[in-house]
Amino acid sequence: MLTKGGCPKNMLSIRDALEALEGRWKLLILFSLQAGAKRFKEISKEVNGITDKTLSKELKILEMNRLVKREVYDTFPPTVEYTITAHGKSLEKVMEELHYWGLAHRKEIMGK
Amino acid sequence: MLTKGGCPKNMLSIRDALEALEGRWKLLILFSLQAGAKRFKEISKEVNGITDKTLSKELKILEMNRLVKREVYDTFPPTVEYTITAHGKSLEKVMEELHYWGLAHRKEIMGK
Repeated sequence: MLTKGGCPKNMLSIRDALEALEGRWKLLILFSLQAGAKRFKEISKEVNGITDKTLSKELKILEMNRLVKREVYDTFPPTVEYTITAHGKSLEKVMEELHYWGLAHRKEIMGK
Repeated sequence: MLTKGGCPKNMLSIRDALEALEGRWKLLILFSLQAGAKRFKEISKEVNGITDKTLSKELKILEMNRLVKREVYDTFPPTVEYTITAHGKSLEKVMEELHYWGLAHRKEIMGK
């Protein structure tokens, strides 16, 4: 295991990842975009509990980190859609492991 | 892929995981404990940038979530050590994926 032994160099990359994904919302937003491009209101509806202000701020940070792309279509009125980038999609394994661990954690905490 | 398609049920388990691991410190603390039991000051030194107040708060939450065990040894003065539990160790795959992704992210952001 690469992470065994608490090697400081590995801690640095985990820190990089945690900083880019900080908070409880970014991965949930990316998860909701995995199913396809979405408009602001659609994301806001899917990611239960997020306020519009927070979603707007989080989308900007995700865009800055090249995880999400914002596209404006020349319709009337203009349509804005958010899509997950290839780099955002590369988080799939992280999300999958978090999903499995989340299930195990619920069992550990609630099931005993 | 289980996480494909943004299935709301999978989002719930990811949300559970993110809530238990919230913030930028918990996984770093657990990572530092993977190498073996440590005293408060040792963790504080390894997890660069954390304040004693935050470390103390985070350790309590980790203990509550059964990820860390606090052990008091009957020495004079008493020794307190923190160890990672089996449940904490089960985060190894999550950390490994975050490590790989952190490396890729650094390349994506800095390397272009």
